[in-house]
Amino acid sequence: MIDLALLPDGGMHWLDASGPKSSIVLSTRIRLARNLQGYVFGQRARDNDRTAILTRVEEAAAAGERLRGAVTFRLDQMERPDRQLLHERHLVSKELAGLDRESRPRPGAALVVGASVGVMVNEEDHLRLHGMRSGFALEEAYAEVEAIDAELGRLLPFAFHGEFGYLTSCPTNVGTGLRASVLIHLPGLVLTREIQKVLQGLTQVGLTSRGLYGEGSDVVGNFFQLSNQTTLGKSEVELLDHLGKIVRQVVEYEEQAREVLLKTAELTVADKVWRAYGLLRYARSLSFEETMNLLSGVRLGVGLNLIPGLSVYTLNKLLIFTQPAHLAALEGRPTGDPELPTVRAAYVRRVLDTEAA
Amino acid sequence: MIDLALLPDGGMHWLDASGPKSSIVLSTRIRLARNLQGYVFGQRARDNDRTAILTRVEEAAAAGERLRGAVTFRLDQMERPDRQLLHERHLVSKELAGLDRESRPRPGAALVVGASVGVMVNEEDHLRLHGMRSGFALEEAYAEVEAIDAELGRLLPFAFHGEFGYLTSCPTNVGTGLRASVLIHLPGLVLTREIQKVLQGLTQVGLTSRGLYGEGSDVVGNFFQLSNQTTLGKSEVELLDHLGKIVRQVVEYEEQAREVLLKTAELTVADKVWRAYGLLRYARSLSFEETMNLLSGVRLGVGLNLIPGLSVYTLNKLLIFTQPAHLAALEGRPTGDPELPTVRAAYVRRVLDTEAA
Repeated sequence: MIDLALLPDGGMHWLDASGPKSSIVLSTRIRLARNLQGYVFGQRARDNDRTAILTRVEEAAAAGERLRGAVTFRLDQMERPDRQLLHERHLVSKELAGLDRESRPRPGAALVVGASVGVMVNEEDHLRLHGMRSGFALEEAYAEVEAIDAELGRLLPFAFHGEFGYLTSCPTNVGTGLRASVLIHLPGLVLTREIQKVLQGLTQVGLTSRGLYGEGSDVVGNFFQLSNQTTLGKSEVELLDHLGKIVRQVVEYEEQAREVLLKTAELTVADKVWRAYGLLRYARSLSFEETMNLLSGVRLGVGLNLIPGLSVYTLNKLLIFTQPAHLAALEGRPTGDPELPTVRAAYVRRVLDTEAA
Repeated sequence: MIDLALLPDGGMHWLDASGPKSSIVLSTRIRLARNLQGYVFGQRARDNDRTAILTRVEEAAAAGERLRGAVTFRLDQMERPDRQLLHERHLVSKELAGLDRESRPRPGAALVVGASVGVMVNEEDHLRLHGMRSGFALEEAYAEVEAIDAELGRLLPFAFHGEFGYLTSCPTNVGTGLRASVLIHLPGLVLTREIQKVLQGLTQVGLTSRGLYGEGSDVVGNFFQLSNQTTLGKSEVELLDHLGKIVRQVVEYEEQAREVLLKTAELTVADKVWRAYGLLRYARSLSFEETMNLLSGVRLGVGLNLIPGLSVYTLNKLLIFTQPAHLAALEGRPTGDPELPTVRAAYVRRVLDTEAA
């Protein structure tokens, strides 16, 4: 079992609900795709290439200022529960962690993680730098990742093309290699049935929306990830500006939808959110999916000031720690324990008993 | 608005869960059908017959010992909410109260009610004496009604035929005129899917099962009324003995089913009953039907000692006072108030806040 305390600040600062608009926008995430000259890209990289790349990244981290003290997690040498834990913490992708059925992490697959930024090594690209911040904070999140990118760029030969920009394994990432995304909670737009219209609008302006766990994952609990689709032909600042404007608008739509709900259906909404609270408070068995849906209801209730005495931080924490690998680690159980739904319900009750006023 | 305090003990003693097996058998009810010689029976009785019958019953009540101080409720002179209230209190039938759509109580329709026994006057029969007791208490319930029957029989010319016994408006009631019934809660048999088999068995031994509000009413919340089908050819004692044996067996089946549930599915049942409790505790809008279903779940939880600190009496009270007319009267609202579901949820929360340990 890995010691999560090894993660500087436990990788959890983005949970603390301290950022702007954090009752609607849980977190902002920046990812930069980088590759090293002289090594084969992506799937075709041989094992010794991959190991060499990891060594170079670790050396660069140690040589620079900003990643000094970073910890390396060798996914290719870790048991599945630990890999799942890092994935649930949003620190590594499902692919890097080899969590798909019958897959394993490929040799050299690793996470090098510092105080606020992590580097996935040997994912689809040689390096994927990423950082998360609480709430809606594109500039701040980008600044952190950019600083480390700049430092690593001085120490490592990033593959860069004068015309195209940073070269990547998949052409959709060429250029800036930047993907910026926000994890956003849109129950108002779902309840007022405007969500489809909004999501279609997003596609038209170059944004994509996905579920909580990235590409191909389901939307559960009205949590959406919104991110830019293109990386090429615009500068980082332009991409962030564009995404920022659109997300700001989506946040406004959500706020308006919530006002409409309060005006036209306060009782129905209050009933819905309190029922969710009642179930979390008393259920004896909870699947993670149901927990997310109930947390979504309670989060809306807290956002609308219908449920007092409960913090968004508590809800964020529950969202992370009720995931299978987190819960199992926390309670000293095997990840596949059939009793996890019972353990989950007991954990949720304990947290709400302690933290709800 | 009628003053329910006029009802000696409010007509509620059967609610107090003091009787035998009262966590499974809510109440036992005895009804005797009687008619007066010299007056036309049933539907064909003219208005002046009906009024005369009421006068004779009231005179007999005043002349005897056991119904002295009884109160007369003239259903034909009462507003619908009050009639509904008496029906919800299980003191008058839907027919006598004229609660079916577009119907009104017929002239002379009345309830003469004493400490423990009531007499419906000018229902299908001239007199229907009835008494209810908490729990499973056939003998005690019968003894009360029988004593009043004996007294009234000395004061009124009951229509009696040497061969057939008491004559009634409908041939199914001829003979003893006795219907004994128990209101029984069978969630164990429902959850173990044995209920259909048990109900079919009951029919074969001459019992009928109906919903909470008598003939034609739906089974909601796993509450069933079991009663004898025949009234002719057996003595009262034989009828009660037979019903008593069968009900005792059904109670045993239910207890066995609950043991099986505890052994094989304790967690599932605990989850179910605590979820019901959580919803009652926090919902902001509750229909009466949902309330009954949730109370059924909580009642099972209390019966299985899964939910501590809550009394069956509290649950019985909620079952009565969350009914539309009771709730409206209690909270000073019109019976058809569209806000009743909100008022009901608030009432349930208040009672549970106060009475749950």
